[in-house]
Amino acid sequence: MAFLLSSSSETVGLLISMLVVFGAAKLMAEVAEKLGQPAVAGELIAGVLIGPSVFGWVSPNEFLAVFSELGVLFLLFQVGLELKDFKLTRVGWDAVSIAILGVIAPFFLGRYIMVSLGHPQIEAAFVGAAMVATSVGITAKVLADMGLLDQRASKLILAAAIIDDVLGLIVLAVVSSLAAGSVNYWELGVTAVLATGFTVIVAQYGTKAFERIVPKFDNATRTRRSQFVLSILLLFALSIVASKVGVAAIIGAFLAGMALASSVSEETKQETEGVTQLLVPFFLVGIGMQMDLSVFSNSQTMWMCGLILLAAILSKLVGCGLGAWRLGFRDAVKVGVGMVPRGEVGMVVAQIGLGIGVIPKDVYAVVVFMSVATTMVAPLMLKLAFRDEGVPAV
Amino acid sequence: MAFLLSSSSETVGLLISMLVVFGAAKLMAEVAEKLGQPAVAGELIAGVLIGPSVFGWVSPNEFLAVFSELGVLFLLFQVGLELKDFKLTRVGWDAVSIAILGVIAPFFLGRYIMVSLGHPQIEAAFVGAAMVATSVGITAKVLADMGLLDQRASKLILAAAIIDDVLGLIVLAVVSSLAAGSVNYWELGVTAVLATGFTVIVAQYGTKAFERIVPKFDNATRTRRSQFVLSILLLFALSIVASKVGVAAIIGAFLAGMALASSVSEETKQETEGVTQLLVPFFLVGIGMQMDLSVFSNSQTMWMCGLILLAAILSKLVGCGLGAWRLGFRDAVKVGVGMVPRGEVGMVVAQIGLGIGVIPKDVYAVVVFMSVATTMVAPLMLKLAFRDEGVPAV
Repeated sequence: MAFLLSSSSETVGLLISMLVVFGAAKLMAEVAEKLGQPAVAGELIAGVLIGPSVFGWVSPNEFLAVFSELGVLFLLFQVGLELKDFKLTRVGWDAVSIAILGVIAPFFLGRYIMVSLGHPQIEAAFVGAAMVATSVGITAKVLADMGLLDQRASKLILAAAIIDDVLGLIVLAVVSSLAAGSVNYWELGVTAVLATGFTVIVAQYGTKAFERIVPKFDNATRTRRSQFVLSILLLFALSIVASKVGVAAIIGAFLAGMALASSVSEETKQETEGVTQLLVPFFLVGIGMQMDLSVFSNSQTMWMCGLILLAAILSKLVGCGLGAWRLGFRDAVKVGVGMVPRGEVGMVVAQIGLGIGVIPKDVYAVVVFMSVATTMVAPLMLKLAFRDEGVPAV
Repeated sequence: MAFLLSSSSETVGLLISMLVVFGAAKLMAEVAEKLGQPAVAGELIAGVLIGPSVFGWVSPNEFLAVFSELGVLFLLFQVGLELKDFKLTRVGWDAVSIAILGVIAPFFLGRYIMVSLGHPQIEAAFVGAAMVATSVGITAKVLADMGLLDQRASKLILAAAIIDDVLGLIVLAVVSSLAAGSVNYWELGVTAVLATGFTVIVAQYGTKAFERIVPKFDNATRTRRSQFVLSILLLFALSIVASKVGVAAIIGAFLAGMALASSVSEETKQETEGVTQLLVPFFLVGIGMQMDLSVFSNSQTMWMCGLILLAAILSKLVGCGLGAWRLGFRDAVKVGVGMVPRGEVGMVVAQIGLGIGVIPKDVYAVVVFMSVATTMVAPLMLKLAFRDEGVPAV
């Protein structure tokens, strides 16, 4: 009665759209698996299909957006939770070189292409900045589905993506400041130090701290599932702090998972896994829904799309690959491929550019296309790159 | 980066309010347990405390409302999932007499009090209708926490609450029609038949059907966690159908859980349990946040509150208790107490009355107070009524 009569049509409408999103994602995941492709690719395509560009069954709304954002937080949390013996500082220098080359290559290549095509400097710089961003969620999900999170290449990808996030933040801040007229180096420096400090400190001391805190918390509390409660609180808290100090909320979520990886029970992981399983399809479908196929209606935009997409893939592949060269060709390719998806992060940069008026609408559409397309291509490339691992993707 | 810069302050703001709601609920649950009281009582009080009436740390918003509504759906789903060998039709006639007497007693007592206090007939009828509604979520949660869902009295409460929902729907429809001028008996009959038919059919054949469907689904799918996917889809689908045929979405969720109880794995139950654990505090805190303590600022409203609250408790206790008389005094008391909370359902009726202008604001506040107060009192009474079961509430 409560639902029928009060929030009535609104709640029921939301439930219907949740059913469609979740159902379509899982149906397409199944189709992808049957075709020997990663489930993630299917869920992204589900988003394209049910979104405004094709069938238009579901249009993006603020509730789906919130589920999507919570979805990627829980995804990164769960990935962190599954990483045992992962020391960010141990893979440190390799990850740093991967991240740095993986920032430089796409930024300058993207900028060069846009300038060559006759676009203004600042617009070109924004496109370059959008090409810098790595969306680690997609790669992490594919690797987790394939049971490959423990591989050296996987850990390097995760570490490099975190550093990439901090670097990307700085690039975007510089580009935005240039668009606004001047760069405040002092503010920029403070943000960089805060962001780096938070990440390094939590990554370094988090696990040890919670190995002490969790058993004490267990003993002190009488309510059931106290570890689950602690996990949720830490996930929310570190996501908030991460945002406040200037890194992505997902980095905070990932660090929260890492901090708890060795101290919470399997039962607790199973419970958070349930939340993750429920919410992640909203994240993947949400990205797919952003795909705007109208970019292909204009031949000039279409060419720009192709060029920028190619540049986006190659620059990460080569840039990050070079950064990982020391590890040998095969691992270098794995790392390069793993850093390709731009996902929601590339789209956010494009939105900012559109918002402050330095990117026109057609270029915005191109950047969004690049973000979605790199994200859809990456799972297929990852499957190829990791095929020699022989772990079945079931 | 994605969160900091895009949805930025909005997403972070939502995360902060989620942290406060979840944290406060769990802190107060712990306090309640330490005092030997049910955790649910603590979580409800957390809502009163952080809500607008006391500290005002969090104000109700549409996102928290959605989490709250999803929370009660998952709560009832989980309760259904934990009920093995529960046949709605087997407890049938006892449940029907409990439900009928539990509808008649509060409706006429509430109406009588309001008329005696000099309020118009239609207003009195609306208050009576609001007193009819049982919010089964609270009782189910308390019983589940105490591990008492398998008791005969618990099963009777659940069954009676479902029938109560259908009856309450009819009472509300009649009262609303009277307020509008005339009653459409044909429409009313169709709704009653549809609602009853849906409930009886799913309750009767759901379990058997899914004992066949689940293994087949397992075999046919390649993606992992197919049982979890099936569970979520069924939960959403039956909630939607329930709303459409006229019963509460939560009844659909409960039936979905019941249908799957004997066929899904413990692992799957653990995963949905995680979602339930995350969302239920939003439901409980959401109810507590509705408490408007300003009803006590006016001595006339204060008296009305006390009288209506007393009538609401006694009428369900005596009405349902009489309906369960056949089972002996102790079980009759348990059943009576279990039907006391009005929760979100009572509030919805009050909202409708306010919306169509037959209930003035002060009476609305009284009904909301009655709904929240019966809900807060019930866990304490349940603990007393079931104290001889000797199952520790941990």
